[in-house]
Amino acid sequence: MAPQYAPSLRSRLPLVAFLLETIFLILFVFFVKIEQQHEQSGRESDSKLFISSYAEFQDVHVMIFMGFGFLATFLVRYGFSGSGFNVLLAAMAIQWAVLINGFLLPQRHHRREIHISMKSVIEAELCAASALVAMGAVHGKTNPVQLLLMALVEVTGFVVTQWILRTLLNADPVYSIMLLHVFGALFGVMVSWVLHREGIKPEHEKEKTDRKTGLFAMFGTLFLWMFWPSFNSALVGDYRRERGLKLTVIYGTYLSLAVSVVMAMSVSMLTSSKGKMNMVHVQSSALSGGVAIGVAMTAVHQPWIAMTIGFCAALLSALGYRYMKNHMLFAFECHDTCGVLSVHAIPGILGWFAHLFLRLASSESTIAVQFAVYHICVLLITACMSLVMGTATGTPPPMHSH
Amino acid sequence: MAPQYAPSLRSRLPLVAFLLETIFLILFVFFVKIEQQHEQSGRESDSKLFISSYAEFQDVHVMIFMGFGFLATFLVRYGFSGSGFNVLLAAMAIQWAVLINGFLLPQRHHRREIHISMKSVIEAELCAASALVAMGAVHGKTNPVQLLLMALVEVTGFVVTQWILRTLLNADPVYSIMLLHVFGALFGVMVSWVLHREGIKPEHEKEKTDRKTGLFAMFGTLFLWMFWPSFNSALVGDYRRERGLKLTVIYGTYLSLAVSVVMAMSVSMLTSSKGKMNMVHVQSSALSGGVAIGVAMTAVHQPWIAMTIGFCAALLSALGYRYMKNHMLFAFECHDTCGVLSVHAIPGILGWFAHLFLRLASSESTIAVQFAVYHICVLLITACMSLVMGTATGTPPPMHSH
Amino acid sequence: MAPQYAPSLRSRLPLVAFLLETIFLILFVFFVKIEQQHEQSGRESDSKLFISSYAEFQDVHVMIFMGFGFLATFLVRYGFSGSGFNVLLAAMAIQWAVLINGFLLPQRHHRREIHISMKSVIEAELCAASALVAMGAVHGKTNPVQLLLMALVEVTGFVVTQWILRTLLNADPVYSIMLLHVFGALFGVMVSWVLHREGIKPEHEKEKTDRKTGLFAMFGTLFLWMFWPSFNSALVGDYRRERGLKLTVIYGTYLSLAVSVVMAMSVSMLTSSKGKMNMVHVQSSALSGGVAIGVAMTAVHQPWIAMTIGFCAALLSALGYRYMKNHMLFAFECHDTCGVLSVHAIPGILGWFAHLFLRLASSESTIAVQFAVYHICVLLITACMSLVMGTATGTPPPMHSH
Repeated sequence: MAPQYAPSLRSRLPLVAFLLETIFLILFVFFVKIEQQHEQSGRESDSKLFISSYAEFQDVHVMIFMGFGFLATFLVRYGFSGSGFNVLLAAMAIQWAVLINGFLLPQRHHRREIHISMKSVIEAELCAASALVAMGAVHGKTNPVQLLLMALVEVTGFVVTQWILRTLLNADPVYSIMLLHVFGALFGVMVSWVLHREGIKPEHEKEKTDRKTGLFAMFGTLFLWMFWPSFNSALVGDYRRERGLKLTVIYGTYLSLAVSVVMAMSVSMLTSSKGKMNMVHVQSSALSGGVAIGVAMTAVHQPWIAMTIGFCAALLSALGYRYMKNHMLFAFECHDTCGVLSVHAIPGILGWFAHLFLRLASSESTIAVQFAVYHICVLLITACMSLVMGTATGTPPPMHSH
Repeated sequence: MAPQYAPSLRSRLPLVAFLLETIFLILFVFFVKIEQQHEQSGRESDSKLFISSYAEFQDVHVMIFMGFGFLATFLVRYGFSGSGFNVLLAAMAIQWAVLINGFLLPQRHHRREIHISMKSVIEAELCAASALVAMGAVHGKTNPVQLLLMALVEVTGFVVTQWILRTLLNADPVYSIMLLHVFGALFGVMVSWVLHREGIKPEHEKEKTDRKTGLFAMFGTLFLWMFWPSFNSALVGDYRRERGLKLTVIYGTYLSLAVSVVMAMSVSMLTSSKGKMNMVHVQSSALSGGVAIGVAMTAVHQPWIAMTIGFCAALLSALGYRYMKNHMLFAFECHDTCGVLSVHAIPGILGWFAHLFLRLASSESTIAVQFAVYHICVLLITACMSLVMGTATGTPPPMHSH
Repeated sequence: MAPQYAPSLRSRLPLVAFLLETIFLILFVFFVKIEQQHEQSGRESDSKLFISSYAEFQDVHVMIFMGFGFLATFLVRYGFSGSGFNVLLAAMAIQWAVLINGFLLPQRHHRREIHISMKSVIEAELCAASALVAMGAVHGKTNPVQLLLMALVEVTGFVVTQWILRTLLNADPVYSIMLLHVFGALFGVMVSWVLHREGIKPEHEKEKTDRKTGLFAMFGTLFLWMFWPSFNSALVGDYRRERGLKLTVIYGTYLSLAVSVVMAMSVSMLTSSKGKMNMVHVQSSALSGGVAIGVAMTAVHQPWIAMTIGFCAALLSALGYRYMKNHMLFAFECHDTCGVLSVHAIPGILGWFAHLFLRLASSESTIAVQFAVYHICVLLITACMSLVMGTATGTPPPMHSH
């Protein structure tokens, strides 16, 4: 039983999608070219990089379309059309991200042209991931047209934030793009909060879960869980000297996830009144280790540090999912359907603290202070941008929601 | 409730499969060897090619067994045993394709031996894909023994067509093998048409769809959709100079599929009376961009051209699936269970036109005419072979169907 | 309806998992480091090996968590929480395997430190696979805490067996680790047998299968089936001279699996009273070709030998699953829930015989006798260790089961 929308809306989504797709196509005609490989310089390493990048791109691709698409199928009302709708949103968000990334972020903007390369496609998929995270907070509170427009606004906001961070703070792209979880989650929660204030009741009927579709959600979760090392490492190691770092990131993410899945299950069983695993909690919190290590990864060089980060992230996330979600509903009137605040925002901020702490511990005092200021600015700008843009997006008039 | 076959049939399928498998095994004893890598020449590039090929082979492998196997699970009567039966057919078709490819197509036939290599296995899987496309048209109208024999005849016909094209017209293998969609679809539709004329009623009960198995079909579709860039590019770029072309094919297929999934959903919602997505339409038409770009790919060098091809393919395919299927049933008494005509044949022919047009636009007049004649011959031979062989296969006596 | 455990047990599993995870974490702090790549020597081949290994590791990773996790979902009582529990067990088994492998098997133990590398992680996942095989025999007869402890004991036993084989017999690691199927299956069956003798009735209600969850089991099976070539070849070919062997293993496994899936279906249909495929039989026996070729692989150089091994393995395994399982239940009072004896032990021993026979056929008499003695010792030690440890593990007091 999909929601019944007004007749005017039924024809509006295909027309909006059709219109946007035509605009994207026209923009691609004028601005986008396929990057040709440089045959002169470094042939050997180029084709090796290609091989490596394509496999990693495939892993990220599977995560976006299979992982996120089926993660939310535990909601009975989601499911059949939901997983299809996820594909529509992600496909449009990727095309838009390729364009907006190319316009704003200069290193891929050669002679007023946007060049499609493995790197630009992977970055576009990461931007789409950030939009899919935001969507987790508003499932069941918006109509499809709103979701589609929200996804495109979210991607724009995230790329603008990236642009600010790289221009003002000269931030490392690999580090700043990993804040996608924090940005997406705060954005989504703000949209949900504003919509709620406007009188839309949280429809608990839409939160019902089902054991049968639960196995589909398990598939989605596992695809995310298994390929997360590729997600974190995809943009690391474009240059030979970073090859060791790439491997460190892969092993670190792998270990962090292994610990966080164990902790997520333990906490879920301990906090449940019947002592049974609540698979919805587990599916969400098992991934928190990947989120946290993603933000901290360039500073993590020991397996046990990665495992400790996974340990703490799963602990916080599982407790947050269990207790904070209802508290937020009653105290702040903020409803967060998939609990993205505990799954993405809290582990992301935990990873940010771990990053700060690890850098401070290994640096001299002057450099340490300098780094701390820079590091705090990056998080503040990201958080402010996402809160402001989320509030603006959720406010009815710009969304034409009624 | 699987169909109830006569007692004689129940034991016939395992015996036929057992017999064929034994024959294949004996043929393998005498004719097939594993290709040893040439240690002397070009060691470096060889092992690099191996790494790249194995990953692409895995993607194609997943598409054949997971993608096609679950694509048809939206039919309630298909499903459990259906996805298993798909594996049986594909496994036998691949073994047969390795043999028949090795016998007929000389470049893999060294000193009267067939050598197994990544390339030969990928080609065998593409031939099996062509048989699986043909099967989409006849689901529910044949018994398993007929399906198995039909698959082997289809593979034989497709390889013979390849042999004719390469011998008579000196056709490019990468281009001619991509006509597998057109060959498979026309073959399947002709078999279905002949069987229908013989008095077998289309059993509409077998076309019922189900929301629960629909999510499984979504899985199959997504695996096909995600890995299609590997499917198209698997045979491109065996040589270093083609490396750039391989990347162009990957990006082109990726963009074409992204546009076609958006268009498939829009058209499905617009043409539906209730304004809802019909996931069966979407699952089918979303793939049409990959089919079309597969035929046109060697002539596509700009992202927007790939996107336009995906746009048109999805438009035609979705409208065709919506309106042409029933029209064909009443006008021509031709029943096409999974709509392969709109999903594979029409986008394939559209891609062929795009290829012709792009080449004509970029060539001088004399070369252009020469190319046009060659190009038209390739399609005509493929279409004729598939129509003739499909009709012959569907006619009862050679199939021992009753 | 998950089983109802006593209240004391409900809180015991999370506490045990929490405690073990903390111990693992502390051990990682003191003993485990991430391996840094040697920048000085052989840069080129190192990074190429990395690329190749990471893709193969991903395939093995998918098999462990997706394949084994969903393989057992054909049991109605398994399923939702079962697939989650599989992840918990595998994640803990891998961490423990990294530690115990590093302590016992010297080549990864540099200067009293354990180094994490692609190879060590793949070996750890293979050890976890052996524990997951053992678990197939006891599903429904143990509580979660017992399963978790059993998995860790099994991994320990398997690594100790590896250590004995490598120290006493100087066995080839690639060959001895492939006996994981034999070790796991015998271990699991012994645990099941001892538990049964102690009066625990096989609960047939827990063996009920369901068509809907059957499709999920099909997914698990297909992931195992498709990626098995990577599973067998993952540890082959660390050195350049073995590159050809790696390819031979990949092609051999691929062909063996293609034949075994055809044979599994034929035998299943022939032995069924209604002539229908029993998907549970098929799902199990289709994999037997991969198990058998895994043990024999380093001696197989011709495609037809690989196919014959797959042929015989599927024949024996399907007949064994059909007839032996019930016979064992009544004759020996041994209940084997997922039939691991026919799926893993019998094909494994068949592969061992094939290996012996192929080596004897290609060697001189003196070397042949020497090899036969060595080969028989390897199997005997593996079998004895698994039988003894399985019996010890199943006996109640050390397990604190009641």
